[in-house]
Amino acid sequence: MINVAIIGAPGYGGIELLRLLLRHPQARVAYVSGRRTVGKTVGEVYPHMRAVCDMLVEETDLDKACQAADVLCFALEHRVGTRLVAQAVERGKKVIDFSADFRLTSQSAYEEFYGEHAAPDLIGKAVYGLPELHREQIQGADFVAVPGCHATAAILSLAPVVSAEMADLSTLVIDSKTGISGVGRTKLTQLNHFPETAENVVPYAIPDHRHRPEIEQELGLLAGQELRVTFVPTRVPMVRGILAAGYATPSHAFAPDGHPTEHLTKQFQRFYEASPFVRVLEPHQDLPCTKAVAATNYADVAVRYDRHASRIIALAVVDNLTKGLASAAVQCMNLMCGFEETTGLEAVGVWP
Amino acid sequence: MINVAIIGAPGYGGIELLRLLLRHPQARVAYVSGRRTVGKTVGEVYPHMRAVCDMLVEETDLDKACQAADVLCFALEHRVGTRLVAQAVERGKKVIDFSADFRLTSQSAYEEFYGEHAAPDLIGKAVYGLPELHREQIQGADFVAVPGCHATAAILSLAPVVSAEMADLSTLVIDSKTGISGVGRTKLTQLNHFPETAENVVPYAIPDHRHRPEIEQELGLLAGQELRVTFVPTRVPMVRGILAAGYATPSHAFAPDGHPTEHLTKQFQRFYEASPFVRVLEPHQDLPCTKAVAATNYADVAVRYDRHASRIIALAVVDNLTKGLASAAVQCMNLMCGFEETTGLEAVGVWP
Amino acid sequence: MINVAIIGAPGYGGIELLRLLLRHPQARVAYVSGRRTVGKTVGEVYPHMRAVCDMLVEETDLDKACQAADVLCFALEHRVGTRLVAQAVERGKKVIDFSADFRLTSQSAYEEFYGEHAAPDLIGKAVYGLPELHREQIQGADFVAVPGCHATAAILSLAPVVSAEMADLSTLVIDSKTGISGVGRTKLTQLNHFPETAENVVPYAIPDHRHRPEIEQELGLLAGQELRVTFVPTRVPMVRGILAAGYATPSHAFAPDGHPTEHLTKQFQRFYEASPFVRVLEPHQDLPCTKAVAATNYADVAVRYDRHASRIIALAVVDNLTKGLASAAVQCMNLMCGFEETTGLEAVGVWP
Amino acid sequence: MINVAIIGAPGYGGIELLRLLLRHPQARVAYVSGRRTVGKTVGEVYPHMRAVCDMLVEETDLDKACQAADVLCFALEHRVGTRLVAQAVERGKKVIDFSADFRLTSQSAYEEFYGEHAAPDLIGKAVYGLPELHREQIQGADFVAVPGCHATAAILSLAPVVSAEMADLSTLVIDSKTGISGVGRTKLTQLNHFPETAENVVPYAIPDHRHRPEIEQELGLLAGQELRVTFVPTRVPMVRGILAAGYATPSHAFAPDGHPTEHLTKQFQRFYEASPFVRVLEPHQDLPCTKAVAATNYADVAVRYDRHASRIIALAVVDNLTKGLASAAVQCMNLMCGFEETTGLEAVGVWP
Repeated sequence: MINVAIIGAPGYGGIELLRLLLRHPQARVAYVSGRRTVGKTVGEVYPHMRAVCDMLVEETDLDKACQAADVLCFALEHRVGTRLVAQAVERGKKVIDFSADFRLTSQSAYEEFYGEHAAPDLIGKAVYGLPELHREQIQGADFVAVPGCHATAAILSLAPVVSAEMADLSTLVIDSKTGISGVGRTKLTQLNHFPETAENVVPYAIPDHRHRPEIEQELGLLAGQELRVTFVPTRVPMVRGILAAGYATPSHAFAPDGHPTEHLTKQFQRFYEASPFVRVLEPHQDLPCTKAVAATNYADVAVRYDRHASRIIALAVVDNLTKGLASAAVQCMNLMCGFEETTGLEAVGVWP
Repeated sequence: MINVAIIGAPGYGGIELLRLLLRHPQARVAYVSGRRTVGKTVGEVYPHMRAVCDMLVEETDLDKACQAADVLCFALEHRVGTRLVAQAVERGKKVIDFSADFRLTSQSAYEEFYGEHAAPDLIGKAVYGLPELHREQIQGADFVAVPGCHATAAILSLAPVVSAEMADLSTLVIDSKTGISGVGRTKLTQLNHFPETAENVVPYAIPDHRHRPEIEQELGLLAGQELRVTFVPTRVPMVRGILAAGYATPSHAFAPDGHPTEHLTKQFQRFYEASPFVRVLEPHQDLPCTKAVAATNYADVAVRYDRHASRIIALAVVDNLTKGLASAAVQCMNLMCGFEETTGLEAVGVWP
Repeated sequence: MINVAIIGAPGYGGIELLRLLLRHPQARVAYVSGRRTVGKTVGEVYPHMRAVCDMLVEETDLDKACQAADVLCFALEHRVGTRLVAQAVERGKKVIDFSADFRLTSQSAYEEFYGEHAAPDLIGKAVYGLPELHREQIQGADFVAVPGCHATAAILSLAPVVSAEMADLSTLVIDSKTGISGVGRTKLTQLNHFPETAENVVPYAIPDHRHRPEIEQELGLLAGQELRVTFVPTRVPMVRGILAAGYATPSHAFAPDGHPTEHLTKQFQRFYEASPFVRVLEPHQDLPCTKAVAATNYADVAVRYDRHASRIIALAVVDNLTKGLASAAVQCMNLMCGFEETTGLEAVGVWP
Repeated sequence: MINVAIIGAPGYGGIELLRLLLRHPQARVAYVSGRRTVGKTVGEVYPHMRAVCDMLVEETDLDKACQAADVLCFALEHRVGTRLVAQAVERGKKVIDFSADFRLTSQSAYEEFYGEHAAPDLIGKAVYGLPELHREQIQGADFVAVPGCHATAAILSLAPVVSAEMADLSTLVIDSKTGISGVGRTKLTQLNHFPETAENVVPYAIPDHRHRPEIEQELGLLAGQELRVTFVPTRVPMVRGILAAGYATPSHAFAPDGHPTEHLTKQFQRFYEASPFVRVLEPHQDLPCTKAVAATNYADVAVRYDRHASRIIALAVVDNLTKGLASAAVQCMNLMCGFEETTGLEAVGVWP
């Protein structure tokens, strides 16, 4: 049994993490802190937590967190907790960071998108928390940066394509549709105001969304060379879920027999065979849909070959708050602490 | 560890029950059957069940079900499984019925709303599966009829009022708002067609909805006399959830001191003090909302006194598929089998 | 052709009014003003207005508005424009006020709900802008207060019942379901944040919602005596629309023959026979639904007699921003200016 | 004033056309026919049409339609009305066909996607009803095939790119997000069942959607050569609207100065300068969103240059039932009949 602290518990990422950890058989939530709701109990902040969790939201105090917990999860936005995270790492705690601060190994890439980095010495010290790519590094790691939600879906869709040298790397396009919860709980803008969001599909941050450098970093690692992608996100009127569609023109190395979709699917199955939370859907099955993974740690992926236009189409769905954030953190924590990767993540999805 | 059979597993009620039982520590799903999807695995019928449950949906065979299981759950619509249920009861199995067939103790009330009863000898033999009212009877019972979803919310809202003789019983009005999943998975009508359902609020079945006699039966039992209610349901564009608002003019016996809402709230707290899944919200807390109980076995209730118009306003929310159906069945099963009432129902709700 | 000024054009009420007036054959929008978006064109503030309306949003200047326009529409929240409205009235302009400031004839009722009144001399000077009740007074009036959206639906549901002395006036209960756009464009609270609003049904302001005194004032006028109602509003996850369900126990004077629903329906038809925008639905027709009136000036109403519990159930649907606000203003303007009541309101509703 | 017949009026396309034509100043709807709802009035079939249109839905009779009307609009699915359309054309009537039957000039392309063609002699005889590309041909034409909804958005997004030889034509990818109303009113499948559609994003028909050959035909015409595109549609939980994102790697001919997005935008503005319903959004404006065009004939388009990955990103939004179907038909009808292109299409969009 380990003790966990959640710094930033009252955000959507923090509360989703709390939901999972409250029923984790080998972890105990020992400390939760926030900012706006300090002094309230979790059940006062969130109505679904009434009678479930009466822990008090404390003002963040790293000493107290370190005293209470073995693992510190920082569920804060980028740049808000950079120094705190750095201090926790320095103290030798196991640290899981939800923010973008330590995902990128390139300081310049970080600063292009997020501004000056407050703890540059630590850049490159965290493992990128996508077990499907970095399982062994995460095992035993002390510092993990949870991927961005769009990045998780985008990388999972194209990773098997890129790693097998199937794609012309200059042709990668990712079109990603996201539910609205990714904005978090307190970003109360007109864009997230129900009457403007409902019955509306809205592309944004084109062409320079912040998750692009992560995607390029990770796909580049798999490809063994630098690469650039076009990344286009679109908001759709639902709460949870991301669907990433990755497009690639096949490389000359791509020489399937007469059944290219089956060939690609096999490659996906091989790539993810050690990953218990990736479900590779077969060509005869339905395409992935976001509802199938809602509130779970699953990523459903599928691939189709467009023979007509000679294109690989790779699809991945995740719940942006779960596999795209909080349950990914639990999956990493399990690996970091030597638990079964699936511990505490077995809850069955909800349908409809 | 008990073995459970789910007859009608591929419906929304059945699949919600399966979701819960697959993680129940003292129950094992030993048999699932259906009709339209016989021969497929559960994971083929429902995409969220891929890699989670590969049980085969069998054609319903009572012998096989009885052989496989100690408890038989019939997740069928009224009149579809009446005879089957009766046979299972006769064989001495523990039986939980989701349909309306055995909820009512009055044959004439049943037949007015549902048509001729196919097993009239069993009428009145099932316990009405609302532990908040019939906990002791359910303990050790062999035959339980799960309440209708609207009925659950309606009864939970007004039960403490009626039981304490606070209301003029001729004035009861219940206005109930429901998500769309209550119609089930296979009722593909224009009314449930997304383009007609979205952005639409639609009252229906006024004034004679089928859940009314249940509500009257149960509130009448509490009141110690027959009573009649006005019941008006309305469909709202969401998937899960029911909010019942119960209105009552106070009786002469209602003589609170200067704080009638507090007085009423105390009565609600007393009424539900032994009920672990009813959260009585205090006057200073937010009013109940459906999202707070989504996918959980909780019912949130609150009461307000409208001093201006001399009216008691009682509110209850449940998830129509969970506390309004499948988790209520699990709660009853726990009591029937001597387990802790809360076993397998501890999953934390999801927000947002 | 008249000239109209819209003060507060960039709110949801103002922009809906602008939508209608831009195609009104006898009105010209001569002036629009706002606060936060001063200096932008309407098409810059609202993307659907691009290429449609390039009028500049000016800082509100009553002199300029009076110079430019014959009719001044104030689409402001209560208490924001009270003095301005008063000045416009004093200058002899035709004035239509969207706020609650001049709806109530009782200063104490106003101040109980809204705080001190900034122009008490004018209380009682505006006509309550519901043509279905005050058509003749509005004809030729110079000062009209547009009803609250909930009040419109509530009054239209119960008016025929109350006016015909059919109801025991101590038993009136109104349960009103509303889309979210009623909160306006700039009220960016968590309650209106898409992830918290979607898949959620939320009652609010119980038991003392601000629209209650309006409802009581108008129904009381029809009844010829003071009366009190219980009014309970609930937010449902859609953008536009209100469904009010009015409940009343019949009075002793209610003595229908064997077909009380038909009897009541006839009374509704008589009551609304001069009202071109009220569609009384017959007993054999579907019940009213909000989508049927979306973006139109129609109110659909229906009535059912609950013989079982001896209750009258009266239903009304309106679009909260159209018949519940902006098109009601146009309807009043038409009457005030001597136009056909239906002018500019003929656009057919959109389905689905 | 012309007389118009609508064959297939009770579908979503037909009823949207009726909505527009009922307020068209130069057209009169003289005949409406259907199949399932024959004998009912339009107001009985659609609740928003009560008191608006009491025309009787007749059984389709071409003689009667031809007698009653100058222009025949066939709002039927592909293959249902092929022979009828052919007969109407042969009789010399002006014909507008909503189906896919006469959009394609290649019989083999048609038969690959839709099966055997029932009137092959007429293939290639209709003008493709996209005025933005074929305005002059439509003027005076007698036979127009309305484009598919996805095709409209896809073509409008990439047309200026392709026509200006800016793109490497082997790199075109179109990712199109659509509301659910495109399935029509009577296709009651589980996929369109509200509980399965809400909170779900679902890709479909990959890689061979039926609208692809239209897109290739029209973009190929503009490019002056055959081309192939990857087309991927995705269903999102809203009623109306399509957002198409077109991706293209620039050709060597693409040599902008230092501001490629501005350069591209100018090209879009030139391309659409004669098109009153295409709004080209500037780089400093918000990106297109579907709500901005809901229920209108507008298409909003924008283009961005992704300098990082050297990609052109072209976006277009339309309402799938309006500009994507019914109002496009009115626009074509106006041109065919010599009216102003914008006649009857001036209604302002609704927000929110």
